[in-house]
Amino acid sequence: MEFSAKQIAQFIGGKIEGDENAKVHTFAKIEEGVPGAISFLANGKYAHYLDDTQSSIVLIDESINLEKAVKPTLIRVKNARDCVAKLLQMYEAAKPKKTGIDKLAFISPKATIGKDVYVGAFAYIGDGVEIGDGCQIYPHAVIGDNVKVGEQCIIYPNTTIYYGCKLGNRVIIHAGTVIGSDGFGFAPNVETGQYDKIPQIGIVTIEDDVEIGANSCVDRSTMGSTYVRKGVKLDNLVQIAHNTDIGKNTVMSAQVGVAGSTKVGEWCMFGGQVGIAGHIQIGDKVFLGAQSGVPGSLESNQTLIGTPPMQKLPYFKSQAIFQRLPEMYKQLTALQKEVEQLKKKQ
Amino acid sequence: MEFSAKQIAQFIGGKIEGDENAKVHTFAKIEEGVPGAISFLANGKYAHYLDDTQSSIVLIDESINLEKAVKPTLIRVKNARDCVAKLLQMYEAAKPKKTGIDKLAFISPKATIGKDVYVGAFAYIGDGVEIGDGCQIYPHAVIGDNVKVGEQCIIYPNTTIYYGCKLGNRVIIHAGTVIGSDGFGFAPNVETGQYDKIPQIGIVTIEDDVEIGANSCVDRSTMGSTYVRKGVKLDNLVQIAHNTDIGKNTVMSAQVGVAGSTKVGEWCMFGGQVGIAGHIQIGDKVFLGAQSGVPGSLESNQTLIGTPPMQKLPYFKSQAIFQRLPEMYKQLTALQKEVEQLKKKQ
Amino acid sequence: MEFSAKQIAQFIGGKIEGDENAKVHTFAKIEEGVPGAISFLANGKYAHYLDDTQSSIVLIDESINLEKAVKPTLIRVKNARDCVAKLLQMYEAAKPKKTGIDKLAFISPKATIGKDVYVGAFAYIGDGVEIGDGCQIYPHAVIGDNVKVGEQCIIYPNTTIYYGCKLGNRVIIHAGTVIGSDGFGFAPNVETGQYDKIPQIGIVTIEDDVEIGANSCVDRSTMGSTYVRKGVKLDNLVQIAHNTDIGKNTVMSAQVGVAGSTKVGEWCMFGGQVGIAGHIQIGDKVFLGAQSGVPGSLESNQTLIGTPPMQKLPYFKSQAIFQRLPEMYKQLTALQKEVEQLKKKQ
Repeated sequence: MEFSAKQIAQFIGGKIEGDENAKVHTFAKIEEGVPGAISFLANGKYAHYLDDTQSSIVLIDESINLEKAVKPTLIRVKNARDCVAKLLQMYEAAKPKKTGIDKLAFISPKATIGKDVYVGAFAYIGDGVEIGDGCQIYPHAVIGDNVKVGEQCIIYPNTTIYYGCKLGNRVIIHAGTVIGSDGFGFAPNVETGQYDKIPQIGIVTIEDDVEIGANSCVDRSTMGSTYVRKGVKLDNLVQIAHNTDIGKNTVMSAQVGVAGSTKVGEWCMFGGQVGIAGHIQIGDKVFLGAQSGVPGSLESNQTLIGTPPMQKLPYFKSQAIFQRLPEMYKQLTALQKEVEQLKKKQ
Repeated sequence: MEFSAKQIAQFIGGKIEGDENAKVHTFAKIEEGVPGAISFLANGKYAHYLDDTQSSIVLIDESINLEKAVKPTLIRVKNARDCVAKLLQMYEAAKPKKTGIDKLAFISPKATIGKDVYVGAFAYIGDGVEIGDGCQIYPHAVIGDNVKVGEQCIIYPNTTIYYGCKLGNRVIIHAGTVIGSDGFGFAPNVETGQYDKIPQIGIVTIEDDVEIGANSCVDRSTMGSTYVRKGVKLDNLVQIAHNTDIGKNTVMSAQVGVAGSTKVGEWCMFGGQVGIAGHIQIGDKVFLGAQSGVPGSLESNQTLIGTPPMQKLPYFKSQAIFQRLPEMYKQLTALQKEVEQLKKKQ
Repeated sequence: MEFSAKQIAQFIGGKIEGDENAKVHTFAKIEEGVPGAISFLANGKYAHYLDDTQSSIVLIDESINLEKAVKPTLIRVKNARDCVAKLLQMYEAAKPKKTGIDKLAFISPKATIGKDVYVGAFAYIGDGVEIGDGCQIYPHAVIGDNVKVGEQCIIYPNTTIYYGCKLGNRVIIHAGTVIGSDGFGFAPNVETGQYDKIPQIGIVTIEDDVEIGANSCVDRSTMGSTYVRKGVKLDNLVQIAHNTDIGKNTVMSAQVGVAGSTKVGEWCMFGGQVGIAGHIQIGDKVFLGAQSGVPGSLESNQTLIGTPPMQKLPYFKSQAIFQRLPEMYKQLTALQKEVEQLKKKQ
């Protein structure tokens, strides 16, 4: 696939400065540019990279003023970052997709496989499974009995989807992720002096357009279902406990953990390593800074950070003073002595 | 499987209010009830769900008073939550188990497989492995050379048990979990200017009745064994480092990490994302709140939270004052000025 | 393999006290010693173990004085810990290696496999893959299309290496780890009211002598490459986001997370559960205590802990005062009242 500056400018609605016949076949960061690559520049601070880059074409924000001519062909656009995303999507869509059912795959005779489905070698598809049209099931994916997978899903290698779980359309599950493992439920048994397992007979429901990163976990519910709603995006190593409900379009960074029976609203964003307690409610559009710890329910429309979470500015102030606590302690002690002196003198 | 209210009431020792012939074949949360389902109500606060639930039978605590008649058949019991756990166990036990050795499994001719064992397609069982009676080895489990697995264990898909490790009876390992990967041991080598690997030639020993969640890790010891003692329950994404010893019936929530050579006592409970330093001792019955960080040894019989861990009440107080630190700082500064004034006036 | 005290003393340059013909064939911790095992003692505090140990030989630091004769043969060395590491390496090197290509492996006809390579059953090696000499690819490893693996690498079971990634020589990847999953990149789309995926068309480059623990994740970059430089050691459950660059010989403990586009210097050491923000720079030789949270760039040559990270001593002081905050608050309030009194009396 090779494209000219002219073709690209037309596609994204940009204005060319330089050779409209410059051709590219790949992408590169501007500082790692190579001939035949297209790069982008969205921040004037990095304009100096234009002097040295070997990239043939650079998408650049209209608003960036350059003081001298540069070697690459420029395509001026309103928002270079958005345009490059668009081009990446086009490039990705044009890549050849894996097709066909590998003869080393295991597909239960009781499973139903849609049209144009790829199933890689050593993939395992259990009894009663339904795989929708256009799905790509990579090698070593394990799809347990009676799992329903919608259309156009991508299930990467070494994933495990336990029996009975349901995936919507266009769901992407990255390698190593586990959907539907038993929720963590045990009850101490006084007679035997150990824990009894509480069976987890529910499922996990993952709605349309969800993407889950690598080595994450979503546990099946005790009964009913754990829900990951439409458009949710989870990063790697995220833990979603049983009986939770993660609202539409909510985004969680890596290593976040949500404990059991908690309901998270829509359009939330959680930074890395955030921990959410069980049995609470998080409203819509709650933005939590990295490593926040949330012990109780939170109202909608807040940007918070810390443990427990606070508004950002007071949090940073408290943090700054935390660093000066020893000094503050000394000042307080000194003051106590002075007041003692003053009292004596009266 | 279908059961009548009468049969269930007899099994759990409850008292029926309503139609003793009401029949159920599944479970549902009371707020998601469907005809043919049994639900439970253990908290009077949610009694209003009884007005609308479609469930045919509801297990309900004796102590909950209802103001009017309700549609579902009620079974009155001392503790509805415990009874539903009992019923779930009965339901689970009655589910048909996978059986037989799939012809697509790899079993070393030097392995020994007990009676009534299930080995799924693409499971890998290495040389010298011993699998006890009644085990279920799911597709894509990898059991390394010379691993010993006791009786009635369940090893879910995409797990890896490295060579030489030992599992007791009734051990459950969820998908993606890794037992026996190399402990993290390196020594800087001044001559080569890089790290030398310290080989980890020990094993992991997992005793009876342990359950480990999905995508967790237990590292093999440098020499000897890492121990996970009888009845331990670990949630998902938990890290147990090499040379540790996790005491009987200790429970760890998701994303907890225990560093190397630490000994954890019996009947401890750690909340999510807790971190325990290496080379320390945690006593018995130590309960740690979520995200606690434990830099040093802890005595038995304590409920603590924070970093370093404190008693709960003082911790919450300190946390509350942390939020008011900027105000407190201002007050202190104001006070200093006032005292200065007072001193001048004397 | 059996070795005499004499052979071992010669190999490591030690001095024998006791029977030079004592023979050993394995290693044991001194407190778990068995006949035929060699143990070590590097800390005089534990010298009492010498009275009871069943080990046949004990490596012991020259500097440790013993008050009475002991049963095992002693080998006196400068640094017993280093010597045991050396012996473990010798022992490990002598272990027979797995060899040959299992007939149940899938190897694309378009892949190139070096000499003396082991490929286990159900390993998957895609189109265009190159595997260097002496590599060990364990069962259930998935090596995606066009991945390049250098020489003498070990890829453990259930790992996934996505298409196009590059591994140097002597790289070790433990079970369940995922290299090259998509970076976490989404852009809100105002028209559709959901997130658009930003395709991640870059790769991951892992240089020579890197070891990565179990169930860790290294994401592929948006374009260009995510870099894990020579000699880096990552523990289990570590998250390395897209577009990052992890400097030579840097070591990260379990459950550390590094967010996107961050550059980490050389010879850093991060304790467990540390979180590093995105788009920042960490200098060389930065040592971070466990659970530290790093919101901004850090200069080289620092030992820090906390969130945000501070020098160790002030941090521990601030932490200690945090615990006394309620008391301090009371003192401040009392002082305010006293000053008020003093002012009135004037």
